[in-house]
Amino acid sequence: MFSLTSPLILASQSPRREQILRMLGFEFSILPADVDETIPSGMKAPDVPEALAKAKSLHVSREHPEKLVLGADTLVVLEDRVLGKPSGTQEALQMLSFLSGRTHQVYTGVALAMGGKIVGSGTACTEVTFETWNKDVLEAYVRGGESLDKAGAYAIQGQGAFLVQGIRGCFFNVMGLPIQKTLRLLQPYQRP
Amino acid sequence: MFSLTSPLILASQSPRREQILRMLGFEFSILPADVDETIPSGMKAPDVPEALAKAKSLHVSREHPEKLVLGADTLVVLEDRVLGKPSGTQEALQMLSFLSGRTHQVYTGVALAMGGKIVGSGTACTEVTFETWNKDVLEAYVRGGESLDKAGAYAIQGQGAFLVQGIRGCFFNVMGLPIQKTLRLLQPYQRP
Repeated sequence: MFSLTSPLILASQSPRREQILRMLGFEFSILPADVDETIPSGMKAPDVPEALAKAKSLHVSREHPEKLVLGADTLVVLEDRVLGKPSGTQEALQMLSFLSGRTHQVYTGVALAMGGKIVGSGTACTEVTFETWNKDVLEAYVRGGESLDKAGAYAIQGQGAFLVQGIRGCFFNVMGLPIQKTLRLLQPYQRP
Repeated sequence: MFSLTSPLILASQSPRREQILRMLGFEFSILPADVDETIPSGMKAPDVPEALAKAKSLHVSREHPEKLVLGADTLVVLEDRVLGKPSGTQEALQMLSFLSGRTHQVYTGVALAMGGKIVGSGTACTEVTFETWNKDVLEAYVRGGESLDKAGAYAIQGQGAFLVQGIRGCFFNVMGLPIQKTLRLLQPYQRP
């Protein structure tokens, strides 16, 4: 259904992003970009994922200028506090306690590069509302080990689904790739 | 994490429901209920899934009174019109054209039975907003074959994800099992 005029590279090592792009029916190869993911000082949180997505896609595009390169970055934000991947079980538990019973925002930025230049980019936001859970339950979840490599210390597509009361927006954006933004970026390169 | 005091049976042959319940970490066996899924005349659409979920769980509970039996049923509704599984590609295309560019409701009813009696039940609603798609795209999707065994003729967790602009509520409810309603039903039977 979705067939492109140029080969596509996904500049990400996230198995979730790979899964979503395959689910949509795209063919692509994977080449993670090795870029500095430090949040630039002075930049507002919602602007960060798009900036990092651009950096990732540009990095890979310079090596493969004849291909389309899709980069993405996901950030969890609650009350102006940015939650990245937790440093360990202790920080994971702190993050989940902070998210419990509240609504947070998940921003994913996407960028498409070709010939060493950005040809399109955007950001999508999904609101995620957590149920209220006590410390014992959150500790049991963290012990399961799923939290440690996830922004915000939970996986909405894993056992962590039990934490979530509901969402508003694109589900796959929370997993790491906003569907409509991604389709719109690739639209000009669709085979008719 | 979720361990029950009695063995659990899922009274459904939906691989999506099985997947969600396993993802949450429950152990259970599967025994689909052979019940009449005709919508009772005079019943309002949002009440139907819970009624059918009760019928399914009761049917299996009578044979296995010592076990917990979870039944579920999912219905897609747009403007008082109930969309079940399409009878063929023609009806699938009609349904998707009707859903295109609009917001519909997905209701999933769940019921828990034990000893041949209902011990709890409920319904969750998720709103799903479709992007606007032309007939060619919808036809290509239907040709893929994914539509035919799905209520509303799409799979939100499959390639059909491209159809959806966003949702409001529980994503897994659209797939066939509302997470919080299900956890609440099973809560009294949780091992401390």
